[in-house]
Amino acid sequence: VRTSTLTADAVERGAFRHFMAKEIHEQPAAIAETLEGRVSDDRILPEALGPDASRLLADVRRVQIVACGTSYHAGLVARYWFESIAGLPCDVEVASEFRYRAHVVAPDTLFVTLSQSGETADTLAALREAKTLGYRATLAICNVPESSLVRESDRVMMTRAGPEIGVASTKAFTTQLTALLLTVIAAGRAHQLGRDEEARLVRALRQIPRQIETVLGLEPRVETLAEAFIDKHHTLFLGRGTQYPVAMEGALKLKEISYIHAEAYPAGELKHGPLALVDADMPVVTAAPNNDLVEKLKSNLQEVRARGGRLYVFADPAAAPAASDDCQVIALPSVDEAVAPLLYSVPLQLLAYHVAVLKGTDVDKPRNLAKSVTVE
Amino acid sequence: VRTSTLTADAVERGAFRHFMAKEIHEQPAAIAETLEGRVSDDRILPEALGPDASRLLADVRRVQIVACGTSYHAGLVARYWFESIAGLPCDVEVASEFRYRAHVVAPDTLFVTLSQSGETADTLAALREAKTLGYRATLAICNVPESSLVRESDRVMMTRAGPEIGVASTKAFTTQLTALLLTVIAAGRAHQLGRDEEARLVRALRQIPRQIETVLGLEPRVETLAEAFIDKHHTLFLGRGTQYPVAMEGALKLKEISYIHAEAYPAGELKHGPLALVDADMPVVTAAPNNDLVEKLKSNLQEVRARGGRLYVFADPAAAPAASDDCQVIALPSVDEAVAPLLYSVPLQLLAYHVAVLKGTDVDKPRNLAKSVTVE
Repeated sequence: VRTSTLTADAVERGAFRHFMAKEIHEQPAAIAETLEGRVSDDRILPEALGPDASRLLADVRRVQIVACGTSYHAGLVARYWFESIAGLPCDVEVASEFRYRAHVVAPDTLFVTLSQSGETADTLAALREAKTLGYRATLAICNVPESSLVRESDRVMMTRAGPEIGVASTKAFTTQLTALLLTVIAAGRAHQLGRDEEARLVRALRQIPRQIETVLGLEPRVETLAEAFIDKHHTLFLGRGTQYPVAMEGALKLKEISYIHAEAYPAGELKHGPLALVDADMPVVTAAPNNDLVEKLKSNLQEVRARGGRLYVFADPAAAPAASDDCQVIALPSVDEAVAPLLYSVPLQLLAYHVAVLKGTDVDKPRNLAKSVTVE
Repeated sequence: VRTSTLTADAVERGAFRHFMAKEIHEQPAAIAETLEGRVSDDRILPEALGPDASRLLADVRRVQIVACGTSYHAGLVARYWFESIAGLPCDVEVASEFRYRAHVVAPDTLFVTLSQSGETADTLAALREAKTLGYRATLAICNVPESSLVRESDRVMMTRAGPEIGVASTKAFTTQLTALLLTVIAAGRAHQLGRDEEARLVRALRQIPRQIETVLGLEPRVETLAEAFIDKHHTLFLGRGTQYPVAMEGALKLKEISYIHAEAYPAGELKHGPLALVDADMPVVTAAPNNDLVEKLKSNLQEVRARGGRLYVFADPAAAPAASDDCQVIALPSVDEAVAPLLYSVPLQLLAYHVAVLKGTDVDKPRNLAKSVTVE
């Protein structure tokens, strides 16, 4: 197991006011570390998932992901990737629910767990349960090499985020996404993914650290934006497709450290209920990368504005809605759609962080929460 | 198609102040109507799902449910039923997400749509998309016989709720659950469900109208309880297993008509974020039927109390936590676990209704929402 070079200075905050800020800024390096030795210029290296991985992946016909909290959101993003890139149907479930449900396991299903610490009690219990249920193999995506989850899984893909101290997970999340996309590309190669597509995805992944640096350069802008949230009690995060779990993760960050009641919805569900809540006191945050869904998303946003809601849109310049008094637009670099969840997660982390700092909460140790949930 | 006898007086509120109240109280009759002619004393009648249904169901090896809003919550309950009762793996997805995603359809998958009106734009579009994807058959569970969804589906199971006028769906939801459980039992009979189990489930379903009458008798108690919510801006609904989608539906009701920001969480996820929000200003509502999960749930509730949260627990008398100043317990009739979602939905509807009445909102026509979402 390769150890992250981010370890050495990780117990010190350095120039940062909080570990969370430091960890947000470490993401380009942590993602680059997670890619290191696993990709060539335009290919996944065969050894990325361990010996014989390509034979195993060729056998796999279905994927079941189980995780909690932030890791669950990473799993939800991966579901779209497994289905669209690798052509493998994928289910994702919260570990505390998975454990207590009757299961019907389809043949050749790969069981994937995600956990930063590798000690999350419900995830570990789900893994142990899964081992009795006839899955083809178990794969852990984890940040701690000596953890129980790593020890007890057939296969391991380490994230190399280095120690994460802030309770609100940031670099663990984006390195999980990185490891998941590597896994999906490797699985895709064993199934339907063509060489050109693989090259496109690997190149997009390799560019992500640099593009996240660009997003981190927008921090002063996000800090200004954060002022609009400090007197708010509610926020709605909207997304479609892979941006829905990104919205869930953005809402969770804001909940965890600023104690604002933030909730995420798939944008298309807005009219089925939550629109009743929208008014000038409930800001709406959304991500609008340039994809097939952006016109649909804009029509959802129009409904929010028509009800007096204030919009904060992180958008691809080519797809951004027009900015106005009630619609702030922050342009992000244009990226390949597959890697957009990595990029768009970062400004939402920055937003939650700066709202919390302005509110004066204990950013690295929010009330009521522990870093690793090692009890049920 | 059999027409509900609830039709005749359904355009009049009668003695009720709002259509929603009338529709909540019509649930015992609407569920009885939905069962009528489809079950004998202890069996599903073979014709319940139309000619040759048992042959079709014997072929089915997987189920995909697609719906929006309240109907989506009914689908989430049915997922547990399909897996535990019929032994059929089941996926459930919001229609606006399903439409725009790459799909891998497993052989012999039954495609099920749920919609009260049968005109929900995203659900209808998902059905049309599904017909090109190689599903084994399409089944609509719907309340309007002449609707597009009914016309365009291979199979239909009508709910016989009668016209639903209130924008916040109540009897449409519980009759959907009824129709779904009938479908699951019929599917189970074609697969793994034994004769005794079928008899137990059918008897439990047949008792539900009377047991819901008992719950409706608790209305004065729920009305008193509602007073605690009128000055609150937030509420958390917790559930495990089938009670998680019941909690989602309870939260949606409160959102829709009282404009309180209510959010549901699977109780086991509490420690992964939302616990940071809990304090004396965020009441926590939960259902505790008597099942394997109740001890786990009680430990989650203990965490809420330890943070100053106020609990409102609808519970089986045999499983209820001890009542105290910070934990109100409302005992519901003991029921078979399979039908508990029908029973426990009703007090949550009553709670949302009385909070809205006390707040003076337009209960039957909440702001920003339409009864049928016939545009995307």
